[in-house]
Amino acid sequence: MSDARPFTTLLSALPASVPFVAPEALERRRGELFELRLGANESTFGPSPRALAAMRNELERASLYGDPESFELRTALSVHLGLTREHLVIGSGIDDLLGLAVRAFLEPGSCAVTSLGAYPTFNYHVAGYGGRIESVPYRDDRNDLDALVDAARRHAARLLYLANPDNPTGSYHDAAAIAALLDALPEQTLLLLDEAYIEFAPPALPFDAEDPRVIRLRTFSKAYGMAGMRIGYAIAPRQTIAAFDKVRLHFGVNRVAQAGALSALADRAFLEGVLAEVAWGREEYTRLATALGLAALASATNFMAFDLGSPERARAVAEGLTARRVFVRVPGATPLNRLVRATVGTPSERRRFGHALEGVLKSSRV
Amino acid sequence: MSDARPFTTLLSALPASVPFVAPEALERRRGELFELRLGANESTFGPSPRALAAMRNELERASLYGDPESFELRTALSVHLGLTREHLVIGSGIDDLLGLAVRAFLEPGSCAVTSLGAYPTFNYHVAGYGGRIESVPYRDDRNDLDALVDAARRHAARLLYLANPDNPTGSYHDAAAIAALLDALPEQTLLLLDEAYIEFAPPALPFDAEDPRVIRLRTFSKAYGMAGMRIGYAIAPRQTIAAFDKVRLHFGVNRVAQAGALSALADRAFLEGVLAEVAWGREEYTRLATALGLAALASATNFMAFDLGSPERARAVAEGLTARRVFVRVPGATPLNRLVRATVGTPSERRRFGHALEGVLKSSRV
Repeated sequence: MSDARPFTTLLSALPASVPFVAPEALERRRGELFELRLGANESTFGPSPRALAAMRNELERASLYGDPESFELRTALSVHLGLTREHLVIGSGIDDLLGLAVRAFLEPGSCAVTSLGAYPTFNYHVAGYGGRIESVPYRDDRNDLDALVDAARRHAARLLYLANPDNPTGSYHDAAAIAALLDALPEQTLLLLDEAYIEFAPPALPFDAEDPRVIRLRTFSKAYGMAGMRIGYAIAPRQTIAAFDKVRLHFGVNRVAQAGALSALADRAFLEGVLAEVAWGREEYTRLATALGLAALASATNFMAFDLGSPERARAVAEGLTARRVFVRVPGATPLNRLVRATVGTPSERRRFGHALEGVLKSSRV
Repeated sequence: MSDARPFTTLLSALPASVPFVAPEALERRRGELFELRLGANESTFGPSPRALAAMRNELERASLYGDPESFELRTALSVHLGLTREHLVIGSGIDDLLGLAVRAFLEPGSCAVTSLGAYPTFNYHVAGYGGRIESVPYRDDRNDLDALVDAARRHAARLLYLANPDNPTGSYHDAAAIAALLDALPEQTLLLLDEAYIEFAPPALPFDAEDPRVIRLRTFSKAYGMAGMRIGYAIAPRQTIAAFDKVRLHFGVNRVAQAGALSALADRAFLEGVLAEVAWGREEYTRLATALGLAALASATNFMAFDLGSPERARAVAEGLTARRVFVRVPGATPLNRLVRATVGTPSERRRFGHALEGVLKSSRV
C-alpha cells in the first residue's frame, strides 16, 4: 500500500473539533430518545402550513436541481426587506454563510473578534480558514460592545462577530447601539451581524445594504421553523455578493427549501402567531423561574437562559433534565456556564418542561 | 460612508465565474420556459415512490436540524457498500464534497490535473482555493488516463480529477483500467474519482476504503433522482474522513434529504427499473442518431452525446432545440464542442426529443 496523501498545512495543524454535539448523538450515547428537544432552539411550532404545503408540492420536482440563483426567493426577500436582489445571497443556513464570509474576508493568519462563549460555529470557521480568534468576555450576560470594538482595534481584526439577539444569553442591543457600534468600528473591521433570532426582537437597525461595514445574516431556521431544510440569507453590499458568487457552492441550496421559504415568507399571519406565542411563553418561563427561586435572563429570542448561580448547579440541573429525557444546553464558557438554556416551545411543552425543571430542583442532589 | 473592507488576497485575484448557467437563468433570459429539460442529466424518472413517501413524512420534522453525523444513512450505506461508517461522509451533493476535498488536499499554489472540458465545478473549486489547473485533452472522446498520469507527474499534482463514467462524453473506463491508473499514480497525487453516474455503468472497481490513493464521490442526484435534495457521499480512508470532520459544514445536509436517501437506497427494485429503462433509452437514442445520419457516443450514463461533426453545427442544433423549448448542453471545450448532450428521459420525453432533433436537422439552417 502506498503512502497517505498529505493534507494541506492548514488542515494538518487543526485539532479535531466539532462545533456542537447534536441531540441525536447524545441519544445514541445514552441509548434513549429525548422526549422534549429544547436545546437547539428549533421552533417547535413548525413551519407555516402554507410552507409545508409548498414543500410537499415541490417534492414532485425533487429530481430537478434548484435554481442556483434562487431568483424567486431573492425577489420576494428584496420586496419584503426593501432591498434589491443584488444585495442578497441564499445559503444552506447561517452556518454556511458564516463560512463564506470568513473565507472571503479573513486573510489566513489574521484576527477575528467574538465574545467568549458566543456561537461556536463562527470560531470553527475562523480556525478552519486559518484565522485567529480573540475573545472578549460577556459583561452582565450581554455582549460588551465597547470591549469588542476595543479588541478589534487592538488586534487589527478583519472580522467582528456579533449575534444580536444573542445566543446563548438571549440579550439584545437596540438599533441605536448597533448604529453606534458601526460608527466606532475600526476601518479594517467588518461586522458579521448574526440576526438568526431577529424576528423575535424589537425593531432592528434599518437596512443600508451598501454599508461596507456590515454583513447581516438571517435564516428560516428559527421563527420560520425550517431548521431541517437548511436555508438562510445574507444581506451585503452588491460588491460583496458578487465576490461571494466567485466561490460559493452555486447548486448547494435544496430546491424544496427554496419553495418552502418563499411560502413561509408570504404567510405573515402564521409568523405573527408564532411570535405572539413565543412572547407569551417567555413570560411563562419568567414566572416559572420566579416560582422556583431562580433568575431568568431577559430574552429577545425563542429561548430563555435560567440562572442557576453556579456552573456546578447548572450542570447538575442539565443532567437531571437529561435523565428526564429533556434536552437543554449549558454554555461552556465562564461566566455563562451557570446558565441552563431552554427553547420556548408550545404550551404543552412549556408545561412539561416546567414540571421537569421543578422535579429536578426538588430532587435531593441539586 | 467608510471604505469597503478588503477581501482576502486570494478572492480579490479571482475573476467572476460560475460553473454553469442554470436552465432557470436561461428561461429568464429568453422569457420562456423549457418544455423538455434534458441538459442537466437529472433523472426524469424521479425518486423512488418510497423515497418520496419518506420525504413527505419527514417534512413533519422540517423544524428540526438534521443529524450532522447522518448516522442512519451512513450505517445503511456502509452495509450496502460493505464498508464501515468511518469510511463515509455525507455532503450536499458531489459539488460540496469536491470543494471539501480540494480544500483539504490542495495546498494553495499547487496543481490539480483534469481533462480539458471535464466537469467545471472541480476547476471552480481549485481556483477558489488558490490552486492551479493543468488540463489534458480528451483522446477519442475519452479521458486519456496515461496522459493524465503523465501530467500529474510532470506538474507534481496534488489532485487528479476523473469522472468515471465521464461527463460530458458518457465514456467509461473499466475496473481494471482504474486499478492500473491507481498503480501508476505518482506518490503525491490523490485521485478524486467522481462516480456520479456509476449506477448506470458496468461493475466498478471493488472498494478498498483504506486505499490512500483515492477518494470516491457518489450521489443521490442521478440514478436515485434526487438532484434537488442535494445529498451525496464520499468514500475515503478513516483518517481522511476524520480530517474532513475538522472543517466540513456539520449541520449542512437537509433532514428531509437524509430520510429520502435512506429510503431510496432500500428500494432496489425501483433503481433497477430506472437502470433498465435508461439502458433501453440509450439504445433508442443510438437508433435515433443512426436514423438521422449522426454518430452517438457510447454511454455508461443517463445521457448521450450526439456527434454533430463541428462546433458550428452543434451550436446551431442546440439553438434550434432551444427554440423548440428543449434544454440540452454543448460542451465548451475543443474537441467536445461538436457534441450535443441530452439526458435519456422517459419514453414520452425521448419521443418528443427525437421529433425535435429531427425537426431541427431538417430545417434549412443546420
